[in-house]
Amino acid sequence: MTQVKAKVTLVGAGPGDPDLITLKGMKAIASADVILYDALVNECLLAEAPAHCTKIYVGKRAERLSTSQDYINQLMVEYALTHGHVVRLKGGDPFVFGRGGEELDFVRTFGIETAVVPGISSSVGLTALQEIPLTYRGIAESFWVITGSTSDGRISEDLFAAVKTNATVVVLMGFAKLKQIVKLYQDAGKGELPIALIQNGSLENEKVVLGRIDSIIEAVEENKIGVPAIIVLGEVVAKHQQFEQVKKELLSSVAS
Amino acid sequence: MTQVKAKVTLVGAGPGDPDLITLKGMKAIASADVILYDALVNECLLAEAPAHCTKIYVGKRAERLSTSQDYINQLMVEYALTHGHVVRLKGGDPFVFGRGGEELDFVRTFGIETAVVPGISSSVGLTALQEIPLTYRGIAESFWVITGSTSDGRISEDLFAAVKTNATVVVLMGFAKLKQIVKLYQDAGKGELPIALIQNGSLENEKVVLGRIDSIIEAVEENKIGVPAIIVLGEVVAKHQQFEQVKKELLSSVAS
Repeated sequence: MTQVKAKVTLVGAGPGDPDLITLKGMKAIASADVILYDALVNECLLAEAPAHCTKIYVGKRAERLSTSQDYINQLMVEYALTHGHVVRLKGGDPFVFGRGGEELDFVRTFGIETAVVPGISSSVGLTALQEIPLTYRGIAESFWVITGSTSDGRISEDLFAAVKTNATVVVLMGFAKLKQIVKLYQDAGKGELPIALIQNGSLENEKVVLGRIDSIIEAVEENKIGVPAIIVLGEVVAKHQQFEQVKKELLSSVAS
Repeated sequence: MTQVKAKVTLVGAGPGDPDLITLKGMKAIASADVILYDALVNECLLAEAPAHCTKIYVGKRAERLSTSQDYINQLMVEYALTHGHVVRLKGGDPFVFGRGGEELDFVRTFGIETAVVPGISSSVGLTALQEIPLTYRGIAESFWVITGSTSDGRISEDLFAAVKTNATVVVLMGFAKLKQIVKLYQDAGKGELPIALIQNGSLENEKVVLGRIDSIIEAVEENKIGVPAIIVLGEVVAKHQQFEQVKKELLSSVAS
């Protein structure tokens, strides 16, 4: 067997639309001997891989949730040692709740070279496509991206701090905790704060719902929003071009 | 004169390396009649524009700082109405401290169609390239991106809240406030917190300095770090592959 140059590159594929990968990400795919790709990665990106490249789906399935990260780690190392350049293609950015850091730690214990190609995080990308500015002079001097699902299933402590600030808050993987998040904002006296949910962002079946904390649960149910969805909280959401329409509807429902 | 279809698209060019733009960004450039581009945008991207495209540098210069945003706003509208598709090419992502929201507001008052193509924000992209994970199970459940330079020259109030959390904090345009930020973390008892500065990230002249809050000012001076630089604060910085080296140097200087 010929000697191969073992290397693992984590590549961010972006939030869904295959055109939202970077040129650098495409070049990594074009130089891959093996690609391990996630559920949220658009499969048409795989067409850019060389003919000899082995492509393996490693999206997590419910029935083997507890072992899958170990399994992915093992695959990365085994394929790097036997095949050469492994591209680990992940949705969004590899380091934004993608467990990319843990994957690198594992790979490095085998002395394998690593690299990372950033991707458009859904937190930044899906808001931009909806023309919701994450920051805006006089409105928000920062944005804070928080997981809605910590490793032990809690709501993140950071959300309790975030609700007290003027930061634009983006919650990823938080749809199942929406009611809890809404209550948190209501308890902080922020029932009027603008909020948006974006489901299947950047894809053809994208759905967006805009509203205020106090009315969002109803709007989500009416519009049948489900996972995967991101939650955006902050005054900047009112900059969305359809937000005025939401305000008018709310006023007319108050008047009626 | 023939009728043109006026449109303004804000496009994020990414943090510096031209390969860090998205395919969608490249397609926008290829369909531009006019490109208005910033100082931090890599000029080689302009080569992808059509032959007839007018390319105008609108990077801010110190001598006309106060008027330049109005000037850019006027240019966008005038060129859209006379030439058609204006691509406003901005460093990083258009909505991460890029005043993109204000630009859209202005353009829309003229009834001109708008669109946004997200870009890799330096906050996400430059940390990824350095293999510093913004989030990591058990270490950081969130990341918070804050401006170091508010419109009235203060340090952002959000930094006072951020220092009390476990969020990974990324400060953009904060180099001039580094001493103030260091003091803030020291006053909060976080003198040992890992910190990184990345200057000219993703470019050939990139410089990185790693350290802890208490020693970073000295390290920055020794390594002659300057603008443009991002500041990354949090335990995740210790995941950088050269951070162990920093620890050893610190220990040996303590021992000596």
